[in-house]
Amino acid sequence: MIEVYAFATPNSVKIPIALEEMGLAYTLRSVNVRNDEQKTAKFLSLNPNGKVPVLIDDVDGERFVLTESAAILIYLAEKTNELLPDDRATRARVFEQLFLHASGLSPAFGNAGFFKRSSPEPQPLAEARFRGEAVRLLGLLDMKLANQAFTAGDDFTIADIAHFGWLWRRQFPGLTLDDTPNLSRWYDDIAARPAVKRAISRVEGLAPTI
Amino acid sequence: MIEVYAFATPNSVKIPIALEEMGLAYTLRSVNVRNDEQKTAKFLSLNPNGKVPVLIDDVDGERFVLTESAAILIYLAEKTNELLPDDRATRARVFEQLFLHASGLSPAFGNAGFFKRSSPEPQPLAEARFRGEAVRLLGLLDMKLANQAFTAGDDFTIADIAHFGWLWRRQFPGLTLDDTPNLSRWYDDIAARPAVKRAISRVEGLAPTI
Repeated sequence: MIEVYAFATPNSVKIPIALEEMGLAYTLRSVNVRNDEQKTAKFLSLNPNGKVPVLIDDVDGERFVLTESAAILIYLAEKTNELLPDDRATRARVFEQLFLHASGLSPAFGNAGFFKRSSPEPQPLAEARFRGEAVRLLGLLDMKLANQAFTAGDDFTIADIAHFGWLWRRQFPGLTLDDTPNLSRWYDDIAARPAVKRAISRVEGLAPTI
Repeated sequence: MIEVYAFATPNSVKIPIALEEMGLAYTLRSVNVRNDEQKTAKFLSLNPNGKVPVLIDDVDGERFVLTESAAILIYLAEKTNELLPDDRATRARVFEQLFLHASGLSPAFGNAGFFKRSSPEPQPLAEARFRGEAVRLLGLLDMKLANQAFTAGDDFTIADIAHFGWLWRRQFPGLTLDDTPNLSRWYDDIAARPAVKRAISRVEGLAPTI
């Protein structure tokens, strides 16, 4: 049985969404990041980087521990042959969006939220830098979604799951989809998927363990 | 013939390294980011995100334009069946490191360098935040490389190429490998590879076009 260590965070939610879409059974284990449970010795033995999510699966009869949400999405897609096309061009588009998310949108959202909410003293230039970058990237995605249904092309893929994670938590950096109608349409489409609803309900129901 | 739009930047260098390792011929086209050439209308028509590198290849008889350095690395690895193992566990480790680089090390190095060198006014908390994160991640890689030759296991893969790009440019954020002996050994191993030397020589030779 697949185990997922997670909490109701932008990166965590991506894994239950993928598992629900793929119809794979899994046990969800709560790591309460509000209490820094991701920095306990026990959790660091799973992921020395101190971050959720972590996936545990059986690979060739051995326990296999995997970190990094997008790496987990690819692993699950290749395990099931779902949500990551074989066609060279479309497949490359999925990876392109996964890395645009990981290297662009995700750090912009995370840092915009940090400097807005968590910085011990105001750092106005830093806050403006990351907020500006986040808004720029929302515009880029909106432009793309004017001409195609999903972020990597005509079909729903793991790239949409990756982007959805942070957009679902856009309140943290204080961003909206009000000025990006195509992205807003895409967001509503994803949020309405039954598998996505089930996954969100499960991560929101994670009981604090401390 | 493959074309690569690039400059002597941390992300650009990864693509010529991969191409040289794989023995693929390519034309290198200079995009002088010091003169903001990556923001010209002509370049934005290739990559609306305004970033190097960009790869152009022929896929099924059509011109195919791909952005995001790590997505390009995966595309080239799957095209040649090199530097990305098929074995499920090792393959997942390569993706894990590619995303640790893209979402962790790369933004930490880039932002540490920005707040050290380019911020219009000092933002000391921001600079310390990204520098601290960069140092933490160097330690994490050093720990991993105490027990294995390369970042994703026993073999050289595209994950090593990704990490090498930013470590090659560690002077920008003012970081060193002095306290990470295993990472330092790994860096020297990679830097000594003939293909890596050829790639660095080519990107360093890119003549400014303005």
